[in-house]
Amino acid sequence: MDVSEIMDGLGRNARDAASELALCPTSQRDKALATAAKSIRDRSATILAANEVDVAAAEKRGLRASMLDRLALDSERVEAMAAGLEVVIELPDPLGRVLAEWDRPNGLHIQRIAVPLGVIGIIYESRPNVTADAAALCLKSGNAAILRGGSESFHSSRSILESLADGLDAANIHPAAIQMVPTTDRAAVGYMLSSMGDTIDVVVPRGGKNLIARVQQEARVPVIGHLEGICHVYLHESANAEMARDIVLNAKMRRTGICGAAETVLVDRSAADRLVPDIVAALNEAGCEVRGDENVRQIASGVNAADEEDWHTEYLDAIISMKVVDDLDQAVEHIRSYGSGHTESIVAEDQDAAEKFLGDVDSAIVLHNASTQYADGGEFGMGAEIGIATGRIHARGPVGAEQLTSYKYVVRGSGQVRP
Amino acid sequence: MDVSEIMDGLGRNARDAASELALCPTSQRDKALATAAKSIRDRSATILAANEVDVAAAEKRGLRASMLDRLALDSERVEAMAAGLEVVIELPDPLGRVLAEWDRPNGLHIQRIAVPLGVIGIIYESRPNVTADAAALCLKSGNAAILRGGSESFHSSRSILESLADGLDAANIHPAAIQMVPTTDRAAVGYMLSSMGDTIDVVVPRGGKNLIARVQQEARVPVIGHLEGICHVYLHESANAEMARDIVLNAKMRRTGICGAAETVLVDRSAADRLVPDIVAALNEAGCEVRGDENVRQIASGVNAADEEDWHTEYLDAIISMKVVDDLDQAVEHIRSYGSGHTESIVAEDQDAAEKFLGDVDSAIVLHNASTQYADGGEFGMGAEIGIATGRIHARGPVGAEQLTSYKYVVRGSGQVRP
Repeated sequence: MDVSEIMDGLGRNARDAASELALCPTSQRDKALATAAKSIRDRSATILAANEVDVAAAEKRGLRASMLDRLALDSERVEAMAAGLEVVIELPDPLGRVLAEWDRPNGLHIQRIAVPLGVIGIIYESRPNVTADAAALCLKSGNAAILRGGSESFHSSRSILESLADGLDAANIHPAAIQMVPTTDRAAVGYMLSSMGDTIDVVVPRGGKNLIARVQQEARVPVIGHLEGICHVYLHESANAEMARDIVLNAKMRRTGICGAAETVLVDRSAADRLVPDIVAALNEAGCEVRGDENVRQIASGVNAADEEDWHTEYLDAIISMKVVDDLDQAVEHIRSYGSGHTESIVAEDQDAAEKFLGDVDSAIVLHNASTQYADGGEFGMGAEIGIATGRIHARGPVGAEQLTSYKYVVRGSGQVRP
Repeated sequence: MDVSEIMDGLGRNARDAASELALCPTSQRDKALATAAKSIRDRSATILAANEVDVAAAEKRGLRASMLDRLALDSERVEAMAAGLEVVIELPDPLGRVLAEWDRPNGLHIQRIAVPLGVIGIIYESRPNVTADAAALCLKSGNAAILRGGSESFHSSRSILESLADGLDAANIHPAAIQMVPTTDRAAVGYMLSSMGDTIDVVVPRGGKNLIARVQQEARVPVIGHLEGICHVYLHESANAEMARDIVLNAKMRRTGICGAAETVLVDRSAADRLVPDIVAALNEAGCEVRGDENVRQIASGVNAADEEDWHTEYLDAIISMKVVDDLDQAVEHIRSYGSGHTESIVAEDQDAAEKFLGDVDSAIVLHNASTQYADGGEFGMGAEIGIATGRIHARGPVGAEQLTSYKYVVRGSGQVRP
């Protein structure tokens, strides 16, 4: 079979499964998740063996250490996957929520009710636990999932999928509710993006620049996009010095490789002398390279020169850029020019300044006096997330089970006809 | 200038306008709408003269009568446009709504706040009043609009746009908040759909099959889609005969050319003898052709034969297809196979049957004991609509000012850093 036949088959089966799944009560979906969690624990040794095949192949191909770390499972990570499914079970049912309701003067009663999106295609890279996370969120929200993981994690994902299949089976849910693309052929990604508009309702891509570029080039199906996170921390002149230092340090260094990590610090000119030296010292001590503009370099030692390219760069590494701005408006303007609309934070004691920043900055997440690393579905209390959407359509910010729903209007009448 | 230069210029200007517009208070946006309404009334003679140029050209090119009717304005229609803007003024501000808010155990307070989508491209056909309607909804919701109407209505739209420009000017809003594509070159549509991802956040296409096909083929930007409306009325065995007749008649014949007009009636076998003859007679008397399956033709006279193609057809005309089904499940299955996910209605006295239908049918709008012609933003109390979305992403059903918004998360802390 060629890729188009394989993918069309997956699509048709997913569509059938989605129709059934939309009518499954939450108890049935939760039962599948509970059984899958148990099965992951039971099959732990098998999953780890499959993962070893992937890791060995990746080592042979010389995958770099950070990628190997994402790929490798151990018994703790397998347990975390199972526990992750149990967190999703505890989430409130995202389906059937009455999002709004009202009466019309003619007696019609109108309700807007949450329903599944339908079939969701998920394209991701090396981390095999995404297989479990994404499938669980789709199932919880009544959507059929077509998963397309990275080829490096193919055996791991296939093995994890067996446990999810156990769950569907135990709950008597259509086996195509969770499917995995059974080939590592890269053409499958293109086919999913361009030719499955009839069977896939939305694609959620999760990955690096190559994948994002491909999605922007090829996608003809709706996409919930995840672009890069060029996140800013802005230190207002009223910032508390200790809080400013702690937030910058955490926003950059807690984990440097996530999309909510800060990449640029903006500091008010009037507070630069007071704030910058201490923060640069703390960053350097934590092993972070600081790249500053002329003003920053005049105030503090241990700062390399930043150039125009730095303001555009998502380092995803222990590097941060730092710039002096005249005032809040200039900070907002810098963020508008160089940011990616992901997450920005202001550190300020002045409430009016904070409110102005929160209002004027048009990013998915804006924070006052808190680290940008809170940009996370779990930290938001959503239980789990499939990613942080940077587009403006449908969902923005953390995408959890609730964001994987659409709605329909239910209208109850007593014989009304329109005049 | 070639089309790409023209369009890129519109896009850049719209992006600038959108940034400003997002921060304009509702009073400023409403002032622009009020002035535009007054200006439309003041310029009525000019608008009618421009419309005459369009109508004369259309007549010369032999446009069919129904299209000419859509295109032609008179003083009453101009007044309706002005009044339409005033209806939009009265709508609640769609921006700044707190869609959800909650506290986290770590003290972070999280709000989800409605914000504009950004820049909206609207592609529509001959009706010039869409220029005013669409621009008003975009402005109310803080979005910059790039309007691309049909070439037949070019002069009319351009004239109406002058009044909208008067409104922007009076309210001191960026003049590029509402722009019109200044060329009738068809390449502009393609460029908007495929190459303006950086400057257009979403395209709303409104039109017939040719436009829809083009959108599906060419769109690389997010689209809020409006497909055809193959709407069904299902008559359950418990249906009240008089109500069934009135609803079918209204759902088909009130206006046959709108997307919420019914195209197919499904009747329970056990109620067919009781319901069908009277309904067919009423339809025929109202000038409607009925195309039925064998069962319907045996029960009633005045019914032509329906073939497979009929169940797939949006007539948009005084024609309706009619079919006998075994039961509710078969009706739902027929709708799943042939419907377009737009609007379906059940006529039933049996409440359990009605609830099952409302739950099982996966369409944007499902009604009980009411005409499908209520599928309309105005009838839903939204004041105005830009169309009825049949996609599942972002907005579904009537798209009003509220549906033209995105949201952002505003997080307030007191120095929280993530452990």
